[in-house]
Amino acid sequence: MSLRFEIIKSSHAARRSTLHTPHGEVETPVFMPVGTAATVKGVPQDLLDQLGVQILLSNTYHLYLRPGIDQIRKLGGLHRFMSWPRAILTDSGGFQVFSLSDLRNVTEEGVTFRSHLDGSSHFLSPETAIEAQIGLGADIIMAFDECTEYPAEASRIRESMEMTLRWAARSKRYFADHKSEVPWNRSQLSAVSSQQNQIHVGPDVHVRAGERGSPKFAEQSSAGPPRAAVPTKPEQSQALFGIVQGGMDPALRKESAERTIEIGFDGYAIGGLSVGEPRALTREIVESTIEHLPKDKPRYLMGVGTPEEIVEYSKLGIDMMDCVLPTRAARHGLLFTSGGKISIKQARYAGDERPLDPSCSCQVCRRYSRAYLRHLYASNEVLSQVLNTIHNLTYYLDTMRRVRHSI
Amino acid sequence: MSLRFEIIKSSHAARRSTLHTPHGEVETPVFMPVGTAATVKGVPQDLLDQLGVQILLSNTYHLYLRPGIDQIRKLGGLHRFMSWPRAILTDSGGFQVFSLSDLRNVTEEGVTFRSHLDGSSHFLSPETAIEAQIGLGADIIMAFDECTEYPAEASRIRESMEMTLRWAARSKRYFADHKSEVPWNRSQLSAVSSQQNQIHVGPDVHVRAGERGSPKFAEQSSAGPPRAAVPTKPEQSQALFGIVQGGMDPALRKESAERTIEIGFDGYAIGGLSVGEPRALTREIVESTIEHLPKDKPRYLMGVGTPEEIVEYSKLGIDMMDCVLPTRAARHGLLFTSGGKISIKQARYAGDERPLDPSCSCQVCRRYSRAYLRHLYASNEVLSQVLNTIHNLTYYLDTMRRVRHSI
Repeated sequence: MSLRFEIIKSSHAARRSTLHTPHGEVETPVFMPVGTAATVKGVPQDLLDQLGVQILLSNTYHLYLRPGIDQIRKLGGLHRFMSWPRAILTDSGGFQVFSLSDLRNVTEEGVTFRSHLDGSSHFLSPETAIEAQIGLGADIIMAFDECTEYPAEASRIRESMEMTLRWAARSKRYFADHKSEVPWNRSQLSAVSSQQNQIHVGPDVHVRAGERGSPKFAEQSSAGPPRAAVPTKPEQSQALFGIVQGGMDPALRKESAERTIEIGFDGYAIGGLSVGEPRALTREIVESTIEHLPKDKPRYLMGVGTPEEIVEYSKLGIDMMDCVLPTRAARHGLLFTSGGKISIKQARYAGDERPLDPSCSCQVCRRYSRAYLRHLYASNEVLSQVLNTIHNLTYYLDTMRRVRHSI
Repeated sequence: MSLRFEIIKSSHAARRSTLHTPHGEVETPVFMPVGTAATVKGVPQDLLDQLGVQILLSNTYHLYLRPGIDQIRKLGGLHRFMSWPRAILTDSGGFQVFSLSDLRNVTEEGVTFRSHLDGSSHFLSPETAIEAQIGLGADIIMAFDECTEYPAEASRIRESMEMTLRWAARSKRYFADHKSEVPWNRSQLSAVSSQQNQIHVGPDVHVRAGERGSPKFAEQSSAGPPRAAVPTKPEQSQALFGIVQGGMDPALRKESAERTIEIGFDGYAIGGLSVGEPRALTREIVESTIEHLPKDKPRYLMGVGTPEEIVEYSKLGIDMMDCVLPTRAARHGLLFTSGGKISIKQARYAGDERPLDPSCSCQVCRRYSRAYLRHLYASNEVLSQVLNTIHNLTYYLDTMRRVRHSI
């Protein structure tokens, strides 16, 4: 069993659930902080833990380019690499290829693109994207899809949706054949362990099941520091989610949902939204898509949203969301509070002794004044980013706690 | 009483002491981390507390330019502004004026200089430097001196030393007349509190002693978050240290020490070292200066040094040291370990699962691998600076703990 989705309570369309993953439980509806390059920018993992983060999102595209999938796989997977023992979800890399890289060329086979870091050429397909995500070893991984641009012609939306469906089937097939290769699968552990002192171990290294499984390899390596716990049940594996596309056309969304469900996944994501369309349209498409998704599987709305939106979509029956907004806004001095947004760079806060948000119990609001936070931002101090991010994440996580409580 | 220096134990020239300050005790010999702009770059105050930091150094020059002394004074002083309830030492600003600013013009009266931030023109003298340091309200403040450049002619060294002596006398005089104005002096608290909602309060605001001292102003402001504790003894004030100069000439150092002692200070610093001279010469000058300093007052060696040097100078009888080395090196990926220095940017660490320093018990070495730290550095992630700084500070603080234990 890779993932168990246990609905605790429902209230109209909304539901409160527990997602049982190989790396712990996740209470939903959940907002997943984004840890792009295996770090939530500026926040140590023990602080994420203290904030109550149960699941992080990390970006396959970024990790693929740096430090490389092989490197992380050899180090035991992403949990162990970044010392994060709780759940992780990785995206497929597709969205970043479409939004960050240059000179991409999309064919039926996959996408050729140039790295935004050094211009080097790479190829990502349903098979290589799933291979990469197995190497990283997140608890939940995503099918490789094409995020249809907005606005787009009806014919273009259909073609793109059809290709995403074919890619979904290929993603699932590759995953079915290779899912036992996840680094934290007990049967992989002796292989990983014995590879630790080798410099070059290519993806063609094959490990025969009969030779491994010694219990000692399920324990921490004595050479390294204590790191992420290894799941103890050998049968545990990753879960694969499918992604519904279909642009802003409710009929195509329905068709995409039905045909994705036909392929069969552990959960279903709604992709292709928050790409520039008006917010009312986003909501309309979310509503019209949700009704075609199975009630007994987790529903993940990708790339959403503001504090208001994460509340709104939870009420519509969304279980999982992610967005760079709280962390990115923090770096730009934009802070979410119970009294509205605060742009801490403003001179009006230079002498303001009050906490950022008097209703917030985070370590930033308990200890520091707006005047100090304004000084840190104005002085371009790194602590500004650290403290602002801690506060904004707390605001998002507290918002979701209230949402779960209200269901 | 502003400062009590209690020698616990001596061993040859070295001594283990407790420095009783208005904001808590400091065990010496001590290394003071540098928090230039009211923050140790990247490290939240609660972490500094967890690391066992008992005293921080902050730079008057930087705070003078941004956010400005008046701003910090109105907010209750530096302890309250940065929410650091333990001891603080500020330098006089002189060293930064000489090393960072452009177009400085030194006269008997003081130094005119241009801000390195915006080119604006400013004037710093013994009187204004002490006024600024009273406004900041550190527990220990420094006389305004001229750091003699190296190398320098004999006549230049003498002239510079003579001016530093005259500036020392002026610093002491201004301090004696104004020390009651420190923001956390109980008699100042009602004034600060009543000013909190005013926008412009110039340095010419005079507060009459008879009108203040209400006990409620000694407590936390109910509007703001809990902040630095206010000393409860109304008679407590800051301590002023004098600075011995005299270049690399032992005879001038002796004369500078004797004449500085004659003026009379709460402690004595050795300045004008670590300015490019060979290390053997630094040691020679430190040794020849220490023998002329009083045994019953704290001795502070400014701007020193490497892990080896802080051990070495503690053995010679130095009680206090500060240096940007551990924090600055951390930002450049240079890490101090029990096995020697590690440059974490090197490719050799990309697959290294070991902790940075297996002998270190800091939260970085307990949780993360060299491979992860190398990835953070190579990816230019802010967490790299945060974790590297935590480790290097731990290494320095642990080194000083061992030094104190060995005395």
